[in-house]
Amino acid sequence: MEIPTPALVVDLDRFERNLQTFAEHCRTSGCAWRPHAKTHKCPEIARRQLAAGAIGISTATVAEAEAMVHAGLRGVLLTSPIVERGKIQRMLALARTPNAVLLAVGNDLQLDVLAEAAASSRQIVDVLLDLDIGDRRTGFLPGEAVLEAARRITRSEFLRLRGLQAYAGHASHVASFEKRAQVSQQAVGKAIQTKELLAKAGLDLAILSVASTGTYNIDSAIRGVTELQCGSFIFMDADYRRIGGKTGPVFTDFQPSLTLLTTVIHANYPDRVTVDAGIKAVSTCIQVKPECISHPGLSHQWTGDEFGIITAEGGIKLPRLGERLEFIVPHCDPTVNLYDCLYAVRGERVEDVWPVTARRGARGIV
Amino acid sequence: MEIPTPALVVDLDRFERNLQTFAEHCRTSGCAWRPHAKTHKCPEIARRQLAAGAIGISTATVAEAEAMVHAGLRGVLLTSPIVERGKIQRMLALARTPNAVLLAVGNDLQLDVLAEAAASSRQIVDVLLDLDIGDRRTGFLPGEAVLEAARRITRSEFLRLRGLQAYAGHASHVASFEKRAQVSQQAVGKAIQTKELLAKAGLDLAILSVASTGTYNIDSAIRGVTELQCGSFIFMDADYRRIGGKTGPVFTDFQPSLTLLTTVIHANYPDRVTVDAGIKAVSTCIQVKPECISHPGLSHQWTGDEFGIITAEGGIKLPRLGERLEFIVPHCDPTVNLYDCLYAVRGERVEDVWPVTARRGARGIV
Repeated sequence: MEIPTPALVVDLDRFERNLQTFAEHCRTSGCAWRPHAKTHKCPEIARRQLAAGAIGISTATVAEAEAMVHAGLRGVLLTSPIVERGKIQRMLALARTPNAVLLAVGNDLQLDVLAEAAASSRQIVDVLLDLDIGDRRTGFLPGEAVLEAARRITRSEFLRLRGLQAYAGHASHVASFEKRAQVSQQAVGKAIQTKELLAKAGLDLAILSVASTGTYNIDSAIRGVTELQCGSFIFMDADYRRIGGKTGPVFTDFQPSLTLLTTVIHANYPDRVTVDAGIKAVSTCIQVKPECISHPGLSHQWTGDEFGIITAEGGIKLPRLGERLEFIVPHCDPTVNLYDCLYAVRGERVEDVWPVTARRGARGIV
Repeated sequence: MEIPTPALVVDLDRFERNLQTFAEHCRTSGCAWRPHAKTHKCPEIARRQLAAGAIGISTATVAEAEAMVHAGLRGVLLTSPIVERGKIQRMLALARTPNAVLLAVGNDLQLDVLAEAAASSRQIVDVLLDLDIGDRRTGFLPGEAVLEAARRITRSEFLRLRGLQAYAGHASHVASFEKRAQVSQQAVGKAIQTKELLAKAGLDLAILSVASTGTYNIDSAIRGVTELQCGSFIFMDADYRRIGGKTGPVFTDFQPSLTLLTTVIHANYPDRVTVDAGIKAVSTCIQVKPECISHPGLSHQWTGDEFGIITAEGGIKLPRLGERLEFIVPHCDPTVNLYDCLYAVRGERVEDVWPVTARRGARGIV
């Protein structure tokens, strides 16, 4: 088949290698993994992750959790706090399936609404306490506040405290492995202390869920961490490549398996051509540019919703009208969110088309 | 109903006023209008535009054109060039319905592929010649190249030349009405000259389709322009508001009718709260920030795919956990593209939920 552009393409060989590399790392380090589906939003990929050894799937929205549970996946953790009654009810509906979901609970309001809803529907719900270990976005501050919340949960007949979640978003993209390790160890250290505080109070918790792709091999070495919720390793992107790895200035533990395919639709000028990939084809959230892998030396700059401009470094020839270009995307998660499907390719052959079922609003819900 | 957040809300009173204001402007200026659906991607809105007097609908992608034609709309113009055979075939399939579509043709390759496909399927297709009048993205350069392309079309048994399209993207957001008028008049002037060149060669064309929301009242006054393809006026956005109007520093000819609704999901710090609107809730393509209309003085900055940080100007109180905030979006088109539906609201009541049928890939196609 001819893939219509703009499109996202998954190189299956690289994808499978990333999956095996990560699974192997978890095996040898003795960590479980519950990879984040906000990266791919695709039950087909989640299934492959579970088949490779993951114990469940992390999700960022209720719609993502619904898509995963409805597709038959279990151990689905909702990592974001929700305070709306309607969303809590939707999660309770999912919780009716045994072992289907866990909720991260990050504040007292959420705890109030959840406890009340669980009690009135007499539905048992597994929860993790979400900790704010330094990125200042969500979660209880470590220390006494967590202890109080944990006690409230254990007093509730319908909430079952399974563990802690501690995501250090501020560590994930710190450039240089050493600096990143320092920031992440300090952050996760707060979660470990909180875990110990709870243990002293008689609350022994089975789960401590942490880590981004940037810190996977830092956090897995921290004693007390039980599972990793990294997501981006499956695709990689230009933003993660530049943070540097343990052994060099480019983070190459995982290879870019996701690319943007685009077609030259206009070529009137000697210094530029126009492609069909603009703002709606690639997330513009960061300053990092898409990285051309089909035609090294070409640069992409969006110039409207539907159009991008391609320019060439000195001496490099511009592509012809109708030619196709392939780019590593700057930030994989929000770029995947722009598409309804991923083309799974081996060599030149399209082996499969995977629906991005859980993209925002794909089923009319958020 | 309680709208789940993040969500896009359409204020129906403002929406209807914008529609009437634009329709009235077109009536008094004697211009037809074929508003751009890339703004809303919503057949329900397109129907209302036709009911208010529009002669058709402009679209930016084949998927948008398909969604509009399948919803029963006619006079659907595809404004972007396409060179892929698969997409040309899809447009030919739409062209089987009488008066359903027009194609803007912007280069020789597109003309080759289209002419051959139309001939081999014996399908008559209405085309506009797309002109590059200065934004250097798509279209034939004005002058002899256009004349040659026009002659090729008129020689073809299956292509019917209906007119010209000349979009001046570089004029749309020029700040200050006078400067914008200058840039647009100069650009559209090239289209007028080309129209005259073709007329001298015996090719009298019925259509000259131009204009963005920023130039609607500039271009409608240019003799020879037959129709406007403005889109954003129906919603407006923060980026258009700041370009200035004919009578003041804010462009207030149309009122913001589209807003982002978001909920405070975390409030641990005295200087900030977290809302559930991040990169996936609002297009980050421009530096302009969302403008808070429910709580003036609050600012939004995304801090991840799902989260935004709200800060307050000195003296202004931060919102509480669970509270809802409403923002004018920076750029309406790519923000609408992030959602599957729009909540149409009058006062406090949700009157309707409109599907964004033609968002990129919403039906598995681009």
